[in-house]
Amino acid sequence: MIVMGIDPGLGTSGWAVVSGAGETHSLLASGAIRTRSGDEMATRLLIICNSVRDLVSAHNPDEVAIEDVFLAKDARAAFALGQARGAAMVGAALQGLPVHSYSALQVKKSVTGNGHASKDQVSYMVVRLLGLKEALHPADSSDAAAIALCHLGHCKDVMQVGQGSI
Amino acid sequence: MIVMGIDPGLGTSGWAVVSGAGETHSLLASGAIRTRSGDEMATRLLIICNSVRDLVSAHNPDEVAIEDVFLAKDARAAFALGQARGAAMVGAALQGLPVHSYSALQVKKSVTGNGHASKDQVSYMVVRLLGLKEALHPADSSDAAAIALCHLGHCKDVMQVGQGSI
Repeated sequence: MIVMGIDPGLGTSGWAVVSGAGETHSLLASGAIRTRSGDEMATRLLIICNSVRDLVSAHNPDEVAIEDVFLAKDARAAFALGQARGAAMVGAALQGLPVHSYSALQVKKSVTGNGHASKDQVSYMVVRLLGLKEALHPADSSDAAAIALCHLGHCKDVMQVGQGSI
Repeated sequence: MIVMGIDPGLGTSGWAVVSGAGETHSLLASGAIRTRSGDEMATRLLIICNSVRDLVSAHNPDEVAIEDVFLAKDARAAFALGQARGAAMVGAALQGLPVHSYSALQVKKSVTGNGHASKDQVSYMVVRLLGLKEALHPADSSDAAAIALCHLGHCKDVMQVGQGSI
């Protein structure tokens, strides 16, 4: 299965396309969508939405996984982040893809075993699990890869539970 | 000029299409977009985005005005609301329309003269300014009409300033 992970943000949204088969995961592509703080909000959101649509169209993932980041520092920051996430989710949904949400705690626990792991630890494990030579840049795309890995791990768990219950 | 006002919300988003020429304003259409709390977030956001697109396509407004509602009760509520607003803005922007933002304070001040007016006062002035027989239901569509009236008033002010400076 191929999963596109998205770490949404108004200024920078990281993305990564990861393929997973059994215990083997590999990075197919990664990058970041950037918008300018001086631009109109509608313009910035449209860039995020259309970029996700284009990336989905170009990389053809089976599913999309996105971080649930409501734990912003205040309500205003949460509102801005919510708008960016809404635009990214619409971009994927417009292409007909299922979009799965994971909290930061779930993502960290999935890739490091510790829901309160540091950013460096998550980045280290992304390098290791994907067999990379160095950390992904920007950090947002590394976080997006972690989200994709979390979804692939979650799917595997679900399948195992399913198989076990037959 | 014809303006579509939107009062965004994850469960209920009010909308109203108002035409304005000089001091005369009239309501062309109004209603609410509803999503079910049991549905997936991506599904709900796609419904909001696509409904706004369809409404813009059906009513052909010149511009869209939307409330800036970051003053939610907490960060989680602000995040949910932000996603809904992001989806609505993308819906309008995908149709190529300019989207203008106004705070609740600006909207209230514009239609009642008092930025801290009660909801009932805003609803009363919407009825009066649009020459309606009764208040719009649901309240979200009345709020959306107030946002459209705010934008029409704001445009008039801008035009007057522009004319004065020639």
